[in-house]
Amino acid sequence: MRRVTEAKRLIIRPDAGSAFEETCDVLIAGSGSAGVCAALEAAEAGASVVVLERLEQAGGSSALSSGQVYLGGGTALQQACGFDDSADALFQYLVATCGPGADEEKTRIFADRATEHYEWLLAHDVPFKPTFLPHTETTNPPGDDGLTYTGSELSYPICGIAAPAPRGHNVQHEGSSGVRLMSGLLSEAAKLGIEIRTQCAVESLIQSDSREIVGALARSEAGKAQWIRARRGVVLTTGGFHHDLEMLRRYAPTLVPLLPIGVTSEDGSGIRLGMAAGGDVMGMEAGCIILPYTKPRKLVKGILVNAYGQRFINEDLYQAVHGDVAVHAQAGHVFCIADAEVFGEPMMDIPIIGPCDTIEELEGKLELPTGSLVQTWQTYNENAARGQDPVFHKSREWLEPLDRAPYRALDLRISSFPYPFFTLGGLRTTPEGQVLNSESEAIPGLFAAGRSTSGICARGYSSGVSLADATFFGRLAGRSAAAR
Amino acid sequence: MRRVTEAKRLIIRPDAGSAFEETCDVLIAGSGSAGVCAALEAAEAGASVVVLERLEQAGGSSALSSGQVYLGGGTALQQACGFDDSADALFQYLVATCGPGADEEKTRIFADRATEHYEWLLAHDVPFKPTFLPHTETTNPPGDDGLTYTGSELSYPICGIAAPAPRGHNVQHEGSSGVRLMSGLLSEAAKLGIEIRTQCAVESLIQSDSREIVGALARSEAGKAQWIRARRGVVLTTGGFHHDLEMLRRYAPTLVPLLPIGVTSEDGSGIRLGMAAGGDVMGMEAGCIILPYTKPRKLVKGILVNAYGQRFINEDLYQAVHGDVAVHAQAGHVFCIADAEVFGEPMMDIPIIGPCDTIEELEGKLELPTGSLVQTWQTYNENAARGQDPVFHKSREWLEPLDRAPYRALDLRISSFPYPFFTLGGLRTTPEGQVLNSESEAIPGLFAAGRSTSGICARGYSSGVSLADATFFGRLAGRSAAAR
Repeated sequence: MRRVTEAKRLIIRPDAGSAFEETCDVLIAGSGSAGVCAALEAAEAGASVVVLERLEQAGGSSALSSGQVYLGGGTALQQACGFDDSADALFQYLVATCGPGADEEKTRIFADRATEHYEWLLAHDVPFKPTFLPHTETTNPPGDDGLTYTGSELSYPICGIAAPAPRGHNVQHEGSSGVRLMSGLLSEAAKLGIEIRTQCAVESLIQSDSREIVGALARSEAGKAQWIRARRGVVLTTGGFHHDLEMLRRYAPTLVPLLPIGVTSEDGSGIRLGMAAGGDVMGMEAGCIILPYTKPRKLVKGILVNAYGQRFINEDLYQAVHGDVAVHAQAGHVFCIADAEVFGEPMMDIPIIGPCDTIEELEGKLELPTGSLVQTWQTYNENAARGQDPVFHKSREWLEPLDRAPYRALDLRISSFPYPFFTLGGLRTTPEGQVLNSESEAIPGLFAAGRSTSGICARGYSSGVSLADATFFGRLAGRSAAAR
Repeated sequence: MRRVTEAKRLIIRPDAGSAFEETCDVLIAGSGSAGVCAALEAAEAGASVVVLERLEQAGGSSALSSGQVYLGGGTALQQACGFDDSADALFQYLVATCGPGADEEKTRIFADRATEHYEWLLAHDVPFKPTFLPHTETTNPPGDDGLTYTGSELSYPICGIAAPAPRGHNVQHEGSSGVRLMSGLLSEAAKLGIEIRTQCAVESLIQSDSREIVGALARSEAGKAQWIRARRGVVLTTGGFHHDLEMLRRYAPTLVPLLPIGVTSEDGSGIRLGMAAGGDVMGMEAGCIILPYTKPRKLVKGILVNAYGQRFINEDLYQAVHGDVAVHAQAGHVFCIADAEVFGEPMMDIPIIGPCDTIEELEGKLELPTGSLVQTWQTYNENAARGQDPVFHKSREWLEPLDRAPYRALDLRISSFPYPFFTLGGLRTTPEGQVLNSESEAIPGLFAAGRSTSGICARGYSSGVSLADATFFGRLAGRSAAAR
């Protein structure tokens, strides 16, 4: 093999296959939920599979996550908890909340097969307890309950677009259950003899002159090169690019001031490998931006105001809607106003302004235009006293006049409290996981899934949609690769 | 030459150069201002140049434009009209208004050389009359005056970021002067013997195995293939992709409901050629979105309100700021409220709601929350009567109470009045016009400029910035290609 590399060594042209040191059917980069689900499907289809993981431990950001999977259409868990749902309602909800530019093709396929996907997870050591938790302090259940609302299902205007149902399927585990999701999937992988090689990353893809991806040059943490032939395909599942400042500046400048979450290996390495192989990208400007101020949950009863002292959104919408709107429509200049009853010490490290005896005093401290917050507050209180929110339609259960001094504001300006986020854009793929070039042709032998791709969470988010996308389309990518 | 094509024929691999039917030094796709400026520089550097133009006439969207070029730093025209300006102020203005994610590298180079670029235009039959027009009904002077304000220079908050100066350099011509800009540049091109071949487009780029672009397969309207070798390089200057619905849906979904302007050949063909050759793209989600409601200009005295009856912006900012904010922060649900004094029949085809005897009645007709517009209107009037706009800081000259019945609204909802727009995203290039791949390596022999690239108007706009970007960086690209 000619060991001359192009594109900063991301792509290597092979001279002959003889130089490969080992051979597998399907090579997978990344051991998060997308990668391991791809590995399971590929192995079950009879393929020999090698998974490479850059970090010391397998599991990726999925293992650090809250372990909620957004599913619906009438899963066994939804039925056990007494909820009706339909594939159409699930589809409508996702299209309404994952845009602008939601991927209707992927979403339709996902919605139609979500109940089957739930059964597949169950069968792969991912358990769900058949209990429903109506309200939690966060979207992430503190206990091991199985079903919760994790988005804007009950909130105006979404509740009028898609019939509501709780769809957050929370893996059975006390607290953050991503670790249990991944331990289950990884134990299944071990049973099938799938090798997960940690501290080893794909450095270059090996691409023939006919553009087919035929293998990869991997490199271990210790620096050892490994030339791996992948007879059927390579699957890229290394996550997003939120930990790479250069890519953020280039493709998603509005996300630069925010706080990246997940494992630090989400630095766009897989996306860049795919791009170097000719892969197109989509939605690169988009992020899941979380504004997690409603812990304790009673803070939903507060009001969100902008730099002009105006309300601008229904406060009972999902926190990723708040984050997106705060950053992209309100220049990251947002406060939550609470009275003595509604205020609670936030679980996150959010600065508090106040207490103040009057709203006028608080308005001054927040440097809002004179009279603006007072006017907003008076109007809100008058309507709330009648159980109404005619402008933003906050649900009645969260409506009460904020008239009990003292008053405080949560300082939610991005300069004061960097919002957690991760990127949503990535390689453009078919539902089956084939990486497409700019002319919508598949690059032979190259597949991707999860946050290395633009998925069903194209440009909007509810909790659990990324894991749903990663696990479901990870499976499809693994199956496609194995079938070549 | 092996006439096997890849990527839907956008890229052809050559076997040998012998099959080329003709040879030039620099081949340019597109005859708008970027292409013709590239051609002039290349020819002046001694290169033989061929320009291909898909349409019947040369000139592109530049010839249809208002013919304003955003320049500053103290051009001879600014000096003749008695205005001080500096390269730093020009730079600061552009960075503040062309983001998020303004290209500071390109902007710095442009700002430092803008006065020289003005002289270059003068020397290439592009005249400017040394007169200043303080106010126009539109940003485009109706007569042939040379200098106007064409952005947010005098508007809060921009006036506090960059020292204001008028920078719209309007080519001397009655009315829309893009036609004069292009007739001047094209006559200079003719003098240099540059061939402009109309009704002929680049169908495929010819790329060697070492990724060098060595020529193109062009095709005439009549279907005749032309194999053209380009010894020094190919320059892509075919404009944006606002006329291609598929690309808009994929890369810029928020722009889909809007009204594309410019020549219909701005369908992304050059961007796609560049992508097929491995070129990276940037800012693909961004557009210049124009909300041209202030014709007559006195409508700036009206107030813009959103779906909640709130003001949300300083009404004296530039119309492309209004368009961007209306679409991306206010869901395209915007009205302009005017009283009898301020109202004038719009020059654009904007629906009018009213007249109404009271603001209450107008509020009802607009289906705004009860009391919301009344409150906004009262607060505005109280402040305007004191000559103040403490919230949005509209300039005093546009401030007066809107209290003279009857009242009307301009219906600026995108569902009622599709906003004109064009795309701002495109190929990622060096300031010298080299097309970069995703790893920031130049693709040998491939250059681009104008709206086929992401330029100094990366994600924000003032009138004249696109022509400034196209003419200035078109020159640099032509010079770079000729120098290979």
